[in-house]
Amino acid sequence: MAPRKLKFWGWGYEDGLSPQVQKHVEFTMAERFGVNQWEKTPPPTIEEIQLQPSRLSLPQSLQHLCSVDPFERLSHTYGKSYRDVVRAFRRDFSNAPDIVAFPRTEGDLINLLEWCDGINAAAIIYGGGTSVVGGVEASIGDHYSGAVSIDLKYLNQVLEVDDISRAARIQGGIRGPAMESRLKEHGLSLRFYPQSFEFSTLGGWIATRAGGHFATLHTHIDDLVESLRVITPKGAVETRRLPGSGAGPSPDRLFIGSEGTLGIITEAWVRLQERPIYRTSSSVIFPDFQSGVKAVRKLSQSGLYPSNCRLLDAGEASDAGAGDGKSAVLMLGFESHDHLLDIWMLRALECCREYGGTYSQDAIKTSQKDSTARAGAVETWRNSFIQAPYLRDVMVGLGVIVETFETAITWNQFEEFHNGVMEAAQNAIREISGLNGWVTCRITHVYPDGPAPYYTVKALGKRGSELEQWDEIKSAVSEAIIRLGGTITHHHAVGRDHRPWYDQQRPQLYASALQSVKKTLDPNYILNPGVLID
Amino acid sequence: MAPRKLKFWGWGYEDGLSPQVQKHVEFTMAERFGVNQWEKTPPPTIEEIQLQPSRLSLPQSLQHLCSVDPFERLSHTYGKSYRDVVRAFRRDFSNAPDIVAFPRTEGDLINLLEWCDGINAAAIIYGGGTSVVGGVEASIGDHYSGAVSIDLKYLNQVLEVDDISRAARIQGGIRGPAMESRLKEHGLSLRFYPQSFEFSTLGGWIATRAGGHFATLHTHIDDLVESLRVITPKGAVETRRLPGSGAGPSPDRLFIGSEGTLGIITEAWVRLQERPIYRTSSSVIFPDFQSGVKAVRKLSQSGLYPSNCRLLDAGEASDAGAGDGKSAVLMLGFESHDHLLDIWMLRALECCREYGGTYSQDAIKTSQKDSTARAGAVETWRNSFIQAPYLRDVMVGLGVIVETFETAITWNQFEEFHNGVMEAAQNAIREISGLNGWVTCRITHVYPDGPAPYYTVKALGKRGSELEQWDEIKSAVSEAIIRLGGTITHHHAVGRDHRPWYDQQRPQLYASALQSVKKTLDPNYILNPGVLID
Repeated sequence: MAPRKLKFWGWGYEDGLSPQVQKHVEFTMAERFGVNQWEKTPPPTIEEIQLQPSRLSLPQSLQHLCSVDPFERLSHTYGKSYRDVVRAFRRDFSNAPDIVAFPRTEGDLINLLEWCDGINAAAIIYGGGTSVVGGVEASIGDHYSGAVSIDLKYLNQVLEVDDISRAARIQGGIRGPAMESRLKEHGLSLRFYPQSFEFSTLGGWIATRAGGHFATLHTHIDDLVESLRVITPKGAVETRRLPGSGAGPSPDRLFIGSEGTLGIITEAWVRLQERPIYRTSSSVIFPDFQSGVKAVRKLSQSGLYPSNCRLLDAGEASDAGAGDGKSAVLMLGFESHDHLLDIWMLRALECCREYGGTYSQDAIKTSQKDSTARAGAVETWRNSFIQAPYLRDVMVGLGVIVETFETAITWNQFEEFHNGVMEAAQNAIREISGLNGWVTCRITHVYPDGPAPYYTVKALGKRGSELEQWDEIKSAVSEAIIRLGGTITHHHAVGRDHRPWYDQQRPQLYASALQSVKKTLDPNYILNPGVLID
Repeated sequence: MAPRKLKFWGWGYEDGLSPQVQKHVEFTMAERFGVNQWEKTPPPTIEEIQLQPSRLSLPQSLQHLCSVDPFERLSHTYGKSYRDVVRAFRRDFSNAPDIVAFPRTEGDLINLLEWCDGINAAAIIYGGGTSVVGGVEASIGDHYSGAVSIDLKYLNQVLEVDDISRAARIQGGIRGPAMESRLKEHGLSLRFYPQSFEFSTLGGWIATRAGGHFATLHTHIDDLVESLRVITPKGAVETRRLPGSGAGPSPDRLFIGSEGTLGIITEAWVRLQERPIYRTSSSVIFPDFQSGVKAVRKLSQSGLYPSNCRLLDAGEASDAGAGDGKSAVLMLGFESHDHLLDIWMLRALECCREYGGTYSQDAIKTSQKDSTARAGAVETWRNSFIQAPYLRDVMVGLGVIVETFETAITWNQFEEFHNGVMEAAQNAIREISGLNGWVTCRITHVYPDGPAPYYTVKALGKRGSELEQWDEIKSAVSEAIIRLGGTITHHHAVGRDHRPWYDQQRPQLYASALQSVKKTLDPNYILNPGVLID
């Protein structure tokens, strides 16, 4: 069997979506937007792309690690944002890296960085390439001699598993499924499932402060990091494996979220979970979104710590095939390797009832094995969660603008914030861009002091102006998020796309502090220029 | 009634301990050490101290904020470590600050910093002065024109309470009891009770990454910080109130643990808890410490999240009046404002039974109000916890060396680590220093990947050489902690006393990164010189 081929222009595998599902998307979108006949853009082929010749010449000693093959250069040009896929459909790969490097050891990586440093080439670290914020794109200005995309795919080993402390030392370039299959041999799991899980890497999660499986407690990868090993142009930084420490400002926290600008995360000790034996899940229907929000707030402050606590607004639930189009739906789940969770679920459902939540007793699914039994709406929603990026690519081909905004805000500000963001998005779609479209919202993670809402915008773009329209929507919504007190990103990272609003969000003196760290660790500013730090 | 007077030479109030308890300490210690007659050193009086004249002359504009009163200068000379109290007993206050300043507003603080910056005086931020690691002492070398101790006691307001998000904006100089009494009006609490609670401050907890009430989950203040306001010599840094964020490396985490070297924490939004309604606690007896450790590990990985999970070894339990001198004792507790905890406790006790834990059914105390009902051994232990620093002062007067070491280590390394640290401590007491003494251990906080053990050393010092003996013990144990993979501090901070081992623990390049941040925020190095950064 030939290995499945990855798309160079979009999400996942070329054969990732069946023609039937593609047809279904076209049909559904046609109905939603009132389109009779799609004017479809076919995906690009390699032969169609005008690729600039590589500006860099490789020394003999590095040639075995590097490639200038067009497929590799094209594959490493973009992340997977809407903006990326649109430009790929336009056959625009003008920011392709000059060279793609595949270090097989830390020594290779050090040699590559030294070479980049010596010839003033930008070094762009590439994990799974699933950035949706322009985090891996070589739009580096003209200060550099060229750009090298350093793909860590061969630094992909689970090096050590500590069953006693439930932790493992793992290389940064490993992808989700490979890591989990190794950990499964030990009955352990990171239980960290971002939507990008299939393709994204441990190092990438840490570098971007990704958000995972758990709706409460360990929401970000941050909390699962026990220690790090980072290669900078000035040398290695290795932190001590510690379950907790109070010794000065945390060194790990400086690199977590540094997005490839301060160093390359080659290894991490991460905290694992035992695989759950007991699971219980349910879906609860609320008459309106704000009632659901109140229930979710109560749950977040209850000390019950559900592993899943996702509240979908009516539109979102309906899009995911999990609601009647009028009600909000809460996906609620608990899991444990240690104890039955009936009491937890019963109390959680009581909290929901207080705010008008209803559920059918049949819909509560409890299992005592690591089975995949899940309540109906929850299961439906999970499938659509995993398939979503594939569907997005189809929509881009149809000219549909699809963008997501994720943020976090305290509970006391949430209602005003939510209304403001929804209004800004709707305005941007209809009034500014003059488009037909809509906005939906789900709450993905909950903290005792506030939720992380996630907004999805869909609009029928005007052909040829999609990027400008995207830009108008992006700016309007991002501006609202910052003005109303949110964060420009809860778990997608800053990259290049969020810079203008990140710069407003972070304190000015903190930006100067980061600058000074950058000068110390990467004095020639070769690492991922344009991201986080100028 | 005249206000109670604080000691300038040791812990708490002058009348903090009744003569009966003092006698009891003398009697117990005499029995333990086989001493017939104590050669007691009386505490110092102000009149006995030779205080250097202040080297600094105050501008008119700052005089109303400052004091050169001997009591204030003496009170601000030391923290509350063993080493501090010994030197106070020796009437050695040679490091007294030249001036003690009491800013009443942030504006005052800025003016004070500007003045210090201008005249090259060291600015040492003083919260509650409860440092046990030399964090507030003006041992600043001869590079500076003098030292100003900046006491934040008047920046002590709860400025805003957000009942919805369960958070409050609070000034850094507030002490534990005042803060809690204001929060109680809202039915809320930080539920953060370090041993120093009565005197230490919110800003101090944040600056030192203090450890609090909870044995699991929110062990450090770090997790309770929603945002910060910090004044640096280059200006203010104010972070955004966010329940969670993924926007670059966390700015809060750079200042949490910075120990007064990067700026002064004038305000923080902190995450609060509802006051518990349901409580259940129990004490479990284990045949030996390592069986208790196994049970505690299981509990830490169970997902039950006890609020209290302290394991005392036989010596520690006996010292606290909570054991029979042979068995290890686990103090176990759950609390909630939301739900009964019987199921939680029953499962936790089941875990304990697996490793030989026994308990009497009568000893399980469950209450459904915010009463103070607690199981017998737990209550006894709590009282002795709070009184301990007072007793320590009495022991110093008797010539008893009392020192604690707290650290954290992963579970897989714990047994070897524990044996190594115990051996190093016992060796240092008997063989190096030739003293009569002993070491005990308790586990104060537990993480899924490891415990935070806390060691207490007591030894009968040779009169006149206590500091040298302390130094031998401190060095030997600290060296063992670092060599065997622990952290030099889990929650007491680094200060000046832990510097040699902290410097070994932190990666060299990270030290350089911190240096560069220091240069950016405090270019003249006036803030707390000698702590963390050179």
